[in-house]
Amino acid sequence: MLAYSGAVRASSDSAPLYKQPNAPSEARIRDLMHRMTPEEKVRQLDLYAGAPALMSSYTDDTHAAKDAVFLPEKAEALWGNLGVGGIHDLNPTPEQSNAIQRWVIAHNRLGIPALFIEEGLHGFDTGTVFPAPLNLAATFDPELARQTGSAIAAEARATGVGMILAPVLDLAREPRWGRVEEDFGEDPYLTGQMGFAYVRGVQGASLNTDHTVVAEPKHFAGHGSPEGGTNTSPVHIGERELRSVMLKSFEPAFREGHAMATMAAYHEIDGIPITADPFLLKTVLRGEWGFQGMVLSDLGAIQRLYKVHHVAATPKDAVCLAVRSGVDMQFYDFEHDVFQNALLDCLKEGTLPEADLDRAVSAVLRLKFSLDLFDHPFVDPSLDKRVYRSQAHLDVSLRSARESMTLLKNENHLLPLSKSVRRIAVIGPNANVARYGDYEKESNGERISLLQGIKSAVPQAMVDFDEGTDIGAAVAKAEASDVVILGLGEKQGISGEGFDRSELGLPGNQEQLLEAVVKTGKPVVLVLENGRPLTIGWAKDHVGAILEAWYPGEFGGRAIAETLFGDNNPSGRLTITFPRSVGQLPDFYNSDPSRVHKYVDDDGKPLFPFGFGLSYTSFNYGDIAVEAPAAGSKADIVVSFEVTNTGEREGTEVPQLYMRQEVGSVETPERSLAGFTKVDLKPHESKRVTMHLRQSQLAVWNAENRWAVEPGYYTVWVGGSSEAALTTRFLLKP
Amino acid sequence: MLAYSGAVRASSDSAPLYKQPNAPSEARIRDLMHRMTPEEKVRQLDLYAGAPALMSSYTDDTHAAKDAVFLPEKAEALWGNLGVGGIHDLNPTPEQSNAIQRWVIAHNRLGIPALFIEEGLHGFDTGTVFPAPLNLAATFDPELARQTGSAIAAEARATGVGMILAPVLDLAREPRWGRVEEDFGEDPYLTGQMGFAYVRGVQGASLNTDHTVVAEPKHFAGHGSPEGGTNTSPVHIGERELRSVMLKSFEPAFREGHAMATMAAYHEIDGIPITADPFLLKTVLRGEWGFQGMVLSDLGAIQRLYKVHHVAATPKDAVCLAVRSGVDMQFYDFEHDVFQNALLDCLKEGTLPEADLDRAVSAVLRLKFSLDLFDHPFVDPSLDKRVYRSQAHLDVSLRSARESMTLLKNENHLLPLSKSVRRIAVIGPNANVARYGDYEKESNGERISLLQGIKSAVPQAMVDFDEGTDIGAAVAKAEASDVVILGLGEKQGISGEGFDRSELGLPGNQEQLLEAVVKTGKPVVLVLENGRPLTIGWAKDHVGAILEAWYPGEFGGRAIAETLFGDNNPSGRLTITFPRSVGQLPDFYNSDPSRVHKYVDDDGKPLFPFGFGLSYTSFNYGDIAVEAPAAGSKADIVVSFEVTNTGEREGTEVPQLYMRQEVGSVETPERSLAGFTKVDLKPHESKRVTMHLRQSQLAVWNAENRWAVEPGYYTVWVGGSSEAALTTRFLLKP
Repeated sequence: MLAYSGAVRASSDSAPLYKQPNAPSEARIRDLMHRMTPEEKVRQLDLYAGAPALMSSYTDDTHAAKDAVFLPEKAEALWGNLGVGGIHDLNPTPEQSNAIQRWVIAHNRLGIPALFIEEGLHGFDTGTVFPAPLNLAATFDPELARQTGSAIAAEARATGVGMILAPVLDLAREPRWGRVEEDFGEDPYLTGQMGFAYVRGVQGASLNTDHTVVAEPKHFAGHGSPEGGTNTSPVHIGERELRSVMLKSFEPAFREGHAMATMAAYHEIDGIPITADPFLLKTVLRGEWGFQGMVLSDLGAIQRLYKVHHVAATPKDAVCLAVRSGVDMQFYDFEHDVFQNALLDCLKEGTLPEADLDRAVSAVLRLKFSLDLFDHPFVDPSLDKRVYRSQAHLDVSLRSARESMTLLKNENHLLPLSKSVRRIAVIGPNANVARYGDYEKESNGERISLLQGIKSAVPQAMVDFDEGTDIGAAVAKAEASDVVILGLGEKQGISGEGFDRSELGLPGNQEQLLEAVVKTGKPVVLVLENGRPLTIGWAKDHVGAILEAWYPGEFGGRAIAETLFGDNNPSGRLTITFPRSVGQLPDFYNSDPSRVHKYVDDDGKPLFPFGFGLSYTSFNYGDIAVEAPAAGSKADIVVSFEVTNTGEREGTEVPQLYMRQEVGSVETPERSLAGFTKVDLKPHESKRVTMHLRQSQLAVWNAENRWAVEPGYYTVWVGGSSEAALTTRFLLKP
Repeated sequence: MLAYSGAVRASSDSAPLYKQPNAPSEARIRDLMHRMTPEEKVRQLDLYAGAPALMSSYTDDTHAAKDAVFLPEKAEALWGNLGVGGIHDLNPTPEQSNAIQRWVIAHNRLGIPALFIEEGLHGFDTGTVFPAPLNLAATFDPELARQTGSAIAAEARATGVGMILAPVLDLAREPRWGRVEEDFGEDPYLTGQMGFAYVRGVQGASLNTDHTVVAEPKHFAGHGSPEGGTNTSPVHIGERELRSVMLKSFEPAFREGHAMATMAAYHEIDGIPITADPFLLKTVLRGEWGFQGMVLSDLGAIQRLYKVHHVAATPKDAVCLAVRSGVDMQFYDFEHDVFQNALLDCLKEGTLPEADLDRAVSAVLRLKFSLDLFDHPFVDPSLDKRVYRSQAHLDVSLRSARESMTLLKNENHLLPLSKSVRRIAVIGPNANVARYGDYEKESNGERISLLQGIKSAVPQAMVDFDEGTDIGAAVAKAEASDVVILGLGEKQGISGEGFDRSELGLPGNQEQLLEAVVKTGKPVVLVLENGRPLTIGWAKDHVGAILEAWYPGEFGGRAIAETLFGDNNPSGRLTITFPRSVGQLPDFYNSDPSRVHKYVDDDGKPLFPFGFGLSYTSFNYGDIAVEAPAAGSKADIVVSFEVTNTGEREGTEVPQLYMRQEVGSVETPERSLAGFTKVDLKPHESKRVTMHLRQSQLAVWNAENRWAVEPGYYTVWVGGSSEAALTTRFLLKP
């Protein structure tokens, strides 16, 4: 319970049930629903843009000015006395959200509070900028995901925001897609575990706190495999792939993490747009998984039923089809009166069952009750100053950046560089700018670039920077140096939402720059900051060392420099396959055994496989053992093995467990990640690692279209990447 | 009925029912089945390689030597007294097949004849070589497909062969796939119409003739959309796409054409391998479509259940799973005793229902009865000499080659070339060889290359050939010429089964050769012979004229030369989209409206669209009208319009009708081909064209997973390509 004195008074027992704090939430929701008029109900299903609509001034359409004041006359014009479902694109100060909330509660008959919803992909508003989700996944560290989610939620809630539009649990199976950087990679198990941890961080043990908010895993579901790799394009999959792959990344977040919201994605699957798909939104999500939260449309996704997918003849049909199919709240799809009147009309005409309307309204109200907004609608304005960019949050960002550093090549131990190096040429368009990735343009973060990071790490060195626009000048600087650090990759506008590419090479003149610099004969370290795998075959063959940094957040340049100069021994791992060329897509590691990878003109092998990443030390695996449960027992399968640091440096290894059903009723992947952990090892130290494989992880959507754990032999592999070679098998008895 | 005196004697009425020619076939099949032992039954489900196994000598594993004699002792060792289902890879002379057939009938208790099965993709054995299927489709002329099928069947049946492994009705949606050349293109309607016509040609009005054989549309179903574009890889589609797209190309061949066989494909769809998929092989094919014929495994596809897909633990399990799922005959999957014993064991154990075994056996017998092999098992040996490479067949091949010529560019009327041209440089690796495409290596055909064709067309011209290996030499020849004809494209080993590419450029040094030749400033005509679309963006921008010839059969060089010099006015059309780059795949024209084609680095437009092809004259469309049926009527929609030859040459236009459902319960393609025809027009002549759209063509697999024709508005377009602009709409009333 919130301690802040601004809380509304607890009502007496004679108050309506929904106002009684001690009554069970579901009873309060039911009571409130019974009191609401249809007009009040549909209002709860609408999301209102906040900044220009409510405030005296704003920095842009999504942000109130910090000194703006709430203008009640605007709210009066917008909402009358019917209240409001959600408010978005405001990014308020606590004072602003409290003022609006106070007005909202006072100006609707039943005193229903508003829900403030904002973005929060890898940081909240101007607060701490965490590494991109692709970095977070590279840490293979769910605890870091939990802490990241927790920090973002705390910074959000302190301003009055009750829900953030994160995490993204789409599977990055299509590297042309610009949103790969927002994902946790291509694997459903890893994404599921990271997503679950992130949701736990965001929502905490309870939403009824001053530091937790509603998490909204998205984009439900299958969004990461669009036709042609272009955003919002159709997804071609059948029910088995949907259930066994795409939904597996979401399931833990909902079933175990109890995420209270989700976003219905833009695309269609096999002809059915998601916002018109009761199979996904009702049968699976609510029916099979027990989801009780709110389904938000992706911005405009309901409108697309009418304008793009052509499965609705009018805006009204689109709205009613969506709510009937399981969507609860529109997101700027239609003008507010169009949306709300559509629902009222359909209700009257009988084309929208009352049960669907009530499901949607109760979902929205459930979020508001869960967040305790009825009993404690206001935030303590002093809290924001304490949590905003707190040292604890900054520490999490830095740690996540460090752990995400992924070393792809290190010939002849070129890295780590000696700190006594004299002359360093830092070259490239990504060297003198901190690349954050999408959804973080507003940040007040540190913005430590690669160049700054290097200067801080080796203050005595002569560091010569060149952007690389003029290759001749860059080569001259390279020639005058002892070592060249190339900062290449992708900028915003090439990666990010809506920025899909048809080829995956280094953009612009970067390949030429790279080749010219390498031709100098100087030792070259390639540092990549990018949002998707790139086809860097030439670099792999010719550059001494390659460090994949993705978009490592506001301390990125520091974490990179610590890695280059040995203060951080890299332990990040690829969560997405690097293909050799765009012509071999899709190239996810967990394809079925009948996938042929070979082409006439290419052996089809990946450039770098899923799970791969080097360390400054080396590791060895041995002594694998597996205990399979007795027949009929539901006990875990227990796999244990020994990991040894065979080098001379302390380091962190990421042991990965892969498995495969040897024979089953349906074809299953060649291998699938089924467990992972992290192990710190001193030089020559060995540790025994034990992993538990739940039998439910073996379940397949079988040939009779039911979930089943099929008895028989299973192969397991353990090792440091998806090419793990140490193997054994176990028999799961019937 | 066959007149050949080698026919067995008609049995008397006291003979067993199955031997009575006048009894109904189904009664004969039932009677025969009742008399068969399980061992005799399973023998009918097996296919035996013929050449080395039966003959005194052979030219290779698939061909008996022409003077080889049948060795009964080999047959005795192979078959004992249980008979044989099918014989393959023999390519016998009539005398050889008769000798074998005589022995087979005499050496099994019930006198069941053998079925000879051979390849026949675009020609039979050493006979007439027709243009590749991709050419045949480019003619947009189903009558030519019928004639081609008929000719191939006649050449096959005259040797005793009763079934050919064609046509291929996979949709070429994946240009990286090597088998694109075997397809009729990417469109389900066009493929369906061509496939239906081809089957009608192969099977005729009756199989009980001396010139028709069983057609085997393949690869059932979905084979043309393999993951990554590699042959036999998994296919990712849902049931709606399978039904609405992939199965539509097969449906006319089975439901209207009554094709009596099909081949179960290698791949899996959504985790279920085709040879283990009763939904496709039983529910759809037999249940919904009423198929009564034989399902043959693709070579080794049953074995793959065990070795690749891992849905069977043993060869025995694989065999029984396949037959249980709807496969009727193995194709070299397992050793004969392994296959047959597996079925016998499963039958005993009850894991193979007798009904499944009997379905399979009756299917094989039905083919043999349909072919009249019980009553007239032998062929007239003199027939072969009359039909083998007959003038009528050769004429069809030439006409098909001519009609398939597809002109992609013709700047400033560079083509047709004047026949009085003095010096022609013919350059390129495809210029001095007749490229036939896959499955035709054995032919005795004319093999008219581009170079030969040109020399014959303009005998007075000085024609200088260079293969283009040494580009400098090629450029010198180009510089000494008045016009350059470049013969580029793909050879066997780059296109064809198993030859999948990860990039789609001109192979080897051809792009450099092209650019060097163009740089001479000479007029350049690019002639392409290739099995798939190529990314020829540079050529499109810089070459004067481009003629796509695909693999135009044994008269290919003649048809090309006739086109280049104006004796043939090209009317071929693309049946597959030319993408700008491999990075924008898949790029079929009939994508759903939610497909986004644009990339950050490319506008995503195709290089040349589906249906496109130029003429030496030009055409205009106008005066479109549409008559929609009254409410409730099942009548056709009738679209009519006027086509005018607006140029100064006689020419043939290919009017195409596209349609789109404006609003439906599910998302449907942006536009779909729904009709086409060919119109010959004299200069300035106009003709009114009428097309009938059957209401069944409007059916969608709706949101309730049923076929439905949904009332509402439909848009139609008519024109000369998939970018047809003349449009109207009609209302289908409820």
